[in-house]
Amino acid sequence: MASPVKVYGPPMSTAVSRVLVTLIEKDVPFELVPIDLSKGEHKNPEYLKIQPFGQVPAFQDESITLFESRAICRYICDKYAEKGNKDLYGTDFLSKANIDQWVETDGQTYGPPSGVLMYQLLFVPKNVKDEGLIKQNEEKLGKVLDVYEQRLGESRFLAGDEFSFADLSHLPNGEYLVNATDKGHLFTSRKNVNRWWNEISNRESWKKVLEMRKNA
Amino acid sequence: MASPVKVYGPPMSTAVSRVLVTLIEKDVPFELVPIDLSKGEHKNPEYLKIQPFGQVPAFQDESITLFESRAICRYICDKYAEKGNKDLYGTDFLSKANIDQWVETDGQTYGPPSGVLMYQLLFVPKNVKDEGLIKQNEEKLGKVLDVYEQRLGESRFLAGDEFSFADLSHLPNGEYLVNATDKGHLFTSRKNVNRWWNEISNRESWKKVLEMRKNA
Repeated sequence: MASPVKVYGPPMSTAVSRVLVTLIEKDVPFELVPIDLSKGEHKNPEYLKIQPFGQVPAFQDESITLFESRAICRYICDKYAEKGNKDLYGTDFLSKANIDQWVETDGQTYGPPSGVLMYQLLFVPKNVKDEGLIKQNEEKLGKVLDVYEQRLGESRFLAGDEFSFADLSHLPNGEYLVNATDKGHLFTSRKNVNRWWNEISNRESWKKVLEMRKNA
Repeated sequence: MASPVKVYGPPMSTAVSRVLVTLIEKDVPFELVPIDLSKGEHKNPEYLKIQPFGQVPAFQDESITLFESRAICRYICDKYAEKGNKDLYGTDFLSKANIDQWVETDGQTYGPPSGVLMYQLLFVPKNVKDEGLIKQNEEKLGKVLDVYEQRLGESRFLAGDEFSFADLSHLPNGEYLVNATDKGHLFTSRKNVNRWWNEISNRESWKKVLEMRKNA
């Protein structure tokens, strides 16, 4: 039997959890290799050989190593096309392109303001939080979610009628914003976004990732 | 004969030019549909139907419309796999994964600091430029390019020995930084990055995009 694939990094990391939920959806066995960020293990020379920027996650499958969570997810969907959720990254180049456009929207349009909000609200000490930046990014994310609200009025999921890599990619930042900050209303106050969020965040695969966080 | 694909947006846009250079590499005929940002044409209701965020580019091929430049590039490489530069997005899932990891690095790691620098240096009026932000992002981009310097000491291009979508994706921001700002030294002072930059920016496909800008 082939060795399970390896994911390097803590499940608390948004990018690591994006890869984990993909592996669970695709029913691909994996081993989680702990990387203790507080001890600077992501800057160790051995780790830098597979992730030269010193970030998490890194990934290994037999002789290939990869970094960048969305690239890792694409690889998993391509290599393990016949396993688990076969619709996750589409079944032809048209459905794939439609999924890709929303994955890129996650990375380029939803990710930046939600990332700044998470960082400011969860990691910056109270006395040095940048309230102007928080307000600015809350407004930005609100405008992005207005477009999602319209889109999710037309289709059940972002890329169509099936749950896909596009929806999945939004889970990590959404989880923290909805459940660990006071900005959850950005999601819950929008009818279609709220319906979508409840559906995707209640998937068994995502619940398993949250369990892994509890046990980490 | 099928209609040429359509690209909506001005060739001066970094994201539009990423799509254009891909189409030229893949030898796919296209029609450029002008969108005058100064007249707010990207916010017209008709345009918002194909690009709901009101950004450029948007793309049309027969009945499919797409947004997000990197998603459009992936679609072009997949649909027109047998045309033009056949190595552009790899020839199997391993080479593709390797290319994808550097395309994501462009979008997530190289893109943000280079984008802030471009915006501050080229578009913000002199009296309100944020010098602290410029310095911070110059340092960030320098550290990113230190990793590229090491990588490009091991291989001719980012994803290996062939020019790919990964290199191409870096052209738009690099072009402005090297040729329109005083930060070109970030590229030219690093031996391997400089060698790589000269090679990729002198490709005929990219020169054609620069010609299109002159004639726009």
